[in-house]
Amino acid sequence: MTTQRKKEAYATAGVDIDAAGRAKELIKQHTRSTVTPKVLSDIGFFNGLFELKGYREPVLVSSTDGVGTKLKIAIALDKHDTIGMDLVNHCVNDILPSGAEPLFFLDYIGTGKLFPDQVSDIVKGMAQACRDVGCALIGGETAEMPGVYVLGDYDIVGFIVGAVEKGNIPDVKSIKVGDTVIGIPSSGLHTNGYSLVRKVFGIGTASEARARLNISHAELGCTLGEELLKPHRCYYRQLKPLLPKIKGMAHITGGGLLDNIPRSLPSGLYVHIRKGSWKILPIFEMIQKQGDINEQEMYRVFNMGIGMVIFCSLREADGLLASLPGAKVIGEVVKGDGQVIID
Amino acid sequence: MTTQRKKEAYATAGVDIDAAGRAKELIKQHTRSTVTPKVLSDIGFFNGLFELKGYREPVLVSSTDGVGTKLKIAIALDKHDTIGMDLVNHCVNDILPSGAEPLFFLDYIGTGKLFPDQVSDIVKGMAQACRDVGCALIGGETAEMPGVYVLGDYDIVGFIVGAVEKGNIPDVKSIKVGDTVIGIPSSGLHTNGYSLVRKVFGIGTASEARARLNISHAELGCTLGEELLKPHRCYYRQLKPLLPKIKGMAHITGGGLLDNIPRSLPSGLYVHIRKGSWKILPIFEMIQKQGDINEQEMYRVFNMGIGMVIFCSLREADGLLASLPGAKVIGEVVKGDGQVIID
Repeated sequence: MTTQRKKEAYATAGVDIDAAGRAKELIKQHTRSTVTPKVLSDIGFFNGLFELKGYREPVLVSSTDGVGTKLKIAIALDKHDTIGMDLVNHCVNDILPSGAEPLFFLDYIGTGKLFPDQVSDIVKGMAQACRDVGCALIGGETAEMPGVYVLGDYDIVGFIVGAVEKGNIPDVKSIKVGDTVIGIPSSGLHTNGYSLVRKVFGIGTASEARARLNISHAELGCTLGEELLKPHRCYYRQLKPLLPKIKGMAHITGGGLLDNIPRSLPSGLYVHIRKGSWKILPIFEMIQKQGDINEQEMYRVFNMGIGMVIFCSLREADGLLASLPGAKVIGEVVKGDGQVIID
Repeated sequence: MTTQRKKEAYATAGVDIDAAGRAKELIKQHTRSTVTPKVLSDIGFFNGLFELKGYREPVLVSSTDGVGTKLKIAIALDKHDTIGMDLVNHCVNDILPSGAEPLFFLDYIGTGKLFPDQVSDIVKGMAQACRDVGCALIGGETAEMPGVYVLGDYDIVGFIVGAVEKGNIPDVKSIKVGDTVIGIPSSGLHTNGYSLVRKVFGIGTASEARARLNISHAELGCTLGEELLKPHRCYYRQLKPLLPKIKGMAHITGGGLLDNIPRSLPSGLYVHIRKGSWKILPIFEMIQKQGDINEQEMYRVFNMGIGMVIFCSLREADGLLASLPGAKVIGEVVKGDGQVIID
């Protein structure tokens, strides 16, 4: 009776205790699959415990991010099992420029209404992406907040901690005039530019969105929805063994090549990118045409087919290219004011 | 021209690049005040770097949380300089049961429309709470997501990492029958039960909310809004020097004494809490009366005036009480099935 009454009062306030309990059970199944021997805690305590072993001079490398309105595509298509991969992969790539090995990840899911199966799918994707890089999904929070989130919508936030030996942090100050700029392919939009894309394709209300997202496009080889939901590619496994040969990296997210490359360069240098040195993915050509967007803007909003940029000496370039399928030399480091020129 | 066009296209899609830039500058002023010598990175790179020094067998302790719909009170009153303190203090308290010293904190702010001054106030509160415990606000993300968040609303998420020597983690297995349960006062609701409170007081639309929140109540000694916005109390400074005398702790958040105490107890034990052993704050009496909520439910939703519970041997109790102003013995550990009895 007491419990029932409580549920009723809470339910009237828009919070479903039972759904939260069911979601928690489903989540545990996924997160347990990521547990490594260094994890000392179980989900359910107030915090996650991770034993840091095997480092002489450890530097902890952390990052937090969301996936932007890519969420709106997942929600419109009611497909939630890859958006968690986007989140994890984005975070893993964000700590990679410091040479960090991912240790553990925490997630936050905020939602207007908690659907346990939806939450389970989201966490399943996160757990898979975590397992792929040996990262423990050590904790998280699911918050049902009626009135903050639009009904049916949710937001997800990821938080990652990695570690690197202090002496192994890539030294961006070693980047010099004449160094080579290598671009590694993205899988598509990754997690950036979705507000603009949704505007361009007229993806507003859910029914309107579904209709447009389910159309197949010959140039994409899939539906628009499939293209827009392609998971953010993770570069960790591929780049980890190559780190000693790399001077610096830039993860190409919001702001594109133009804004992200300068974040990784010492002052007094800029990068000259050569157009046509890699293949711009068809989705970007489609967006540009459909939205009548000028090229400069395209390069600032989207990754244009390059998800990660690495800087290396000319001497190391061939070896790196041989180890990175699809990677291309896309430009070189020149003397200047930290701006990126694309021509 | 190019820049203008870009801004226009993005603005049409509901994303304000200029506002993001202004917010970033304001944020930097606050976060810089939290930087300690162990922080190796500046805000603006892809990640935060923190050098972990001075530990022999470090265990990293992490947690993530939001502040629930306490946000709705801050938004209704257009007062955003304390909600960040709630977030940080909640997270600091969550890693305290493992004996952890806070090292660094990252935040996420998701919003329907980015108002730079609002974001600056939020981060100012976070920075102040971080400084108070020597924690570096090392990174964060501000995401403008029109269509996901209700216009004018926002969500904030905090991530904390602390560290503790493996040998210094309080051993909850040492908790025994007959041990003392001490309750330390909360400042009010902290960050839990707000969906129910808003329902009880009829705080729905913003104008309705403001009217009710601005009424002064003699029993509270302040307006309802001031009471409901009182920052979540942080227990770190007070409890850190006492850790060697403490066997275990429970941070009393959502679920109240009933759900949070068992999270900290070894199996085979439960806690007998004596009603009347501490003063229930007037706000809780007001909520119970106004909402006609039964007592059991009150104890499960709210902290009822106890923000942190510590377990200690009978021998240590007097010393601890003398060092913790306002703290009371509220019960004892008894043999049983992990449930909490309050009578």
